[in-house]
Amino acid sequence: MSIAVHRPSTDVRLDQVHYAIRAYFAERTHSASRYGPEFTELWRIATATVLGGKLVRPRLVMAVHSALTDDDGPAPSPVVNAAAAVELLHYSFLLHDDVIDGDLMRRGQLNLIGEVAAGLATTADRTAALHWATTSGILMGDLMLSGVYQLIAELDAPASVRSRLTRVLGEAIDETVAGEHADVGLAHGAIAPDLGTILAMEANKTATYTFCLPLAFGAILADADAATVRALTRAGRHLGLSFQLQDDLLSVFGEPSRHGKDEVSDLREGKMTALIAHARDTRQWRDIHPYLGRRDLTRMEVRRVRTLLEECGAKAEIERHIDEAMEGFAVAVGDAAVPERAREDLSALAASLRGRSA
Amino acid sequence: MSIAVHRPSTDVRLDQVHYAIRAYFAERTHSASRYGPEFTELWRIATATVLGGKLVRPRLVMAVHSALTDDDGPAPSPVVNAAAAVELLHYSFLLHDDVIDGDLMRRGQLNLIGEVAAGLATTADRTAALHWATTSGILMGDLMLSGVYQLIAELDAPASVRSRLTRVLGEAIDETVAGEHADVGLAHGAIAPDLGTILAMEANKTATYTFCLPLAFGAILADADAATVRALTRAGRHLGLSFQLQDDLLSVFGEPSRHGKDEVSDLREGKMTALIAHARDTRQWRDIHPYLGRRDLTRMEVRRVRTLLEECGAKAEIERHIDEAMEGFAVAVGDAAVPERAREDLSALAASLRGRSA
Repeated sequence: MSIAVHRPSTDVRLDQVHYAIRAYFAERTHSASRYGPEFTELWRIATATVLGGKLVRPRLVMAVHSALTDDDGPAPSPVVNAAAAVELLHYSFLLHDDVIDGDLMRRGQLNLIGEVAAGLATTADRTAALHWATTSGILMGDLMLSGVYQLIAELDAPASVRSRLTRVLGEAIDETVAGEHADVGLAHGAIAPDLGTILAMEANKTATYTFCLPLAFGAILADADAATVRALTRAGRHLGLSFQLQDDLLSVFGEPSRHGKDEVSDLREGKMTALIAHARDTRQWRDIHPYLGRRDLTRMEVRRVRTLLEECGAKAEIERHIDEAMEGFAVAVGDAAVPERAREDLSALAASLRGRSA
Repeated sequence: MSIAVHRPSTDVRLDQVHYAIRAYFAERTHSASRYGPEFTELWRIATATVLGGKLVRPRLVMAVHSALTDDDGPAPSPVVNAAAAVELLHYSFLLHDDVIDGDLMRRGQLNLIGEVAAGLATTADRTAALHWATTSGILMGDLMLSGVYQLIAELDAPASVRSRLTRVLGEAIDETVAGEHADVGLAHGAIAPDLGTILAMEANKTATYTFCLPLAFGAILADADAATVRALTRAGRHLGLSFQLQDDLLSVFGEPSRHGKDEVSDLREGKMTALIAHARDTRQWRDIHPYLGRRDLTRMEVRRVRTLLEECGAKAEIERHIDEAMEGFAVAVGDAAVPERAREDLSALAASLRGRSA
């Protein structure tokens, strides 16, 4: 996920978040030593695995705050710490997500679970090592979730700002968990895969805390009124849905050299995306269906599935949903009582995300 | 765990907590419906499984608040809600503990994980049902952890009280997680089982949030000063350690009819308790060791292990630790600047816990 940034000072602010996260982990790792070397080691591994992403969410917090306050300088410390907290929330979700999915890798590297398991590989049997590693993932996720609340509670900001942030945080956690629950339920067939359910799941699981929460945080920290925060939250939901749908298209129709994912990993995994859910309701489904979930798809078969997904109208339908989401985004940004500059910044941000599918 | 209660109004206050928890779950279950019937069902199961315990922790919150304010009437609403939050924290820990231990039962009934798995038993294969159930346990634990912070943030109490409660809550979560981490590490042999490590693990994993946190919450809600809260927290740690050690003794030497557990479950599971850790350092260890972890121990073998654990001095050593902890408790309560009545109430409380091992 790459977000174009137009202000020269952005790197300074990103550095601020980077340092805030490093300082937080250094302090926590130091405190962990009172509980013995194994607990310190867990924090050391968390320190090594937390900073691999592009800090998209902190960027959004700071971009909105900067736009609303018309201040391009270094961000004030409460903004930096709130942005860092949002990244820790992301890390917490990734940890529990990886436990649930049984993943040992993230972004091509061993994740925390993989690192803990690897560290024990020579001293314990495989099952015990994996159990210890999974336990560590659950517990570090809990520590992060609690840590996010602590960071917000300790912000050097007015009590009213901290209260608003705390409330938004709680709502985002509730919604993300509901989305994760639906995602796993869909995978197990415990929840029926209709298009509306899948779109809601995707928005809840990822868009809420990736877009709505950071936009709301930036606005609240800039002391925006409730109506503005609501409008930006709505804008974030549209943006997030658009982003997710573009991701679904990319992972079937994209050039791997352009987006860096396995060309057709969603097809090979048989993942129930909005694209596939739409195709299910068409007469081409009986031709598409046999190709999905096959690890050994040939290039020619991939071309065939692509053609079928275009012919049945699923691709066009998803593109229509993306257009709708972008229109919804523009309307919501228009509704927000924000300075012209903020509107321009947010539109540029949306355009840069949109460009990914070009 | 039974705690003698000497004030006639206690049941009214317990009812208040009971209703607060019920109201909380009713509201959350209602809100869950926007995410579909499966998510509502998860909340319904949570509602059915949260209230099986004796509300020991809420009782402690209210007992301390009542003693410090010398008020036996119904508890004020912030005290009720904070007491309810402490019970939800307990439930959150139980959920993740059960996920980690792979347990489907709690207090002789199906726990949340067991209920979710049972609900799917006919529609999905066993592995998928268990994965869906375990996922549900992780996610509901996350919702509870977040919900505790939300309840504290929303208390109708001064901002300074909410801040103090939030800080104590964070410290208790950190310490409990460290204790859980050590417990699993000890079970896997990833952490060496010396007596000091085991005592610290037991205090961190259970005593902190079961005794220190409720005592500190009650005191903070009564607007006690920092020194009093510190003294009561110290008292809680001694009380918790004493309680845990008595539990260790009970599960080897107790009469099952008196404490309701499997007579010698700790022996049969080969659990590394403080009692066993002490025995490891004695010359009787080579005789004791072969009996541990055997599911098929006969009555005569149990008697033999008991005799050995007495002969090697481990039982006496643990009793000495319990005496020390109770003395530490008395000193800490003496240090707390609290009215005479509060001191009496706390001592009665401690004595009632002590009586369990008689």
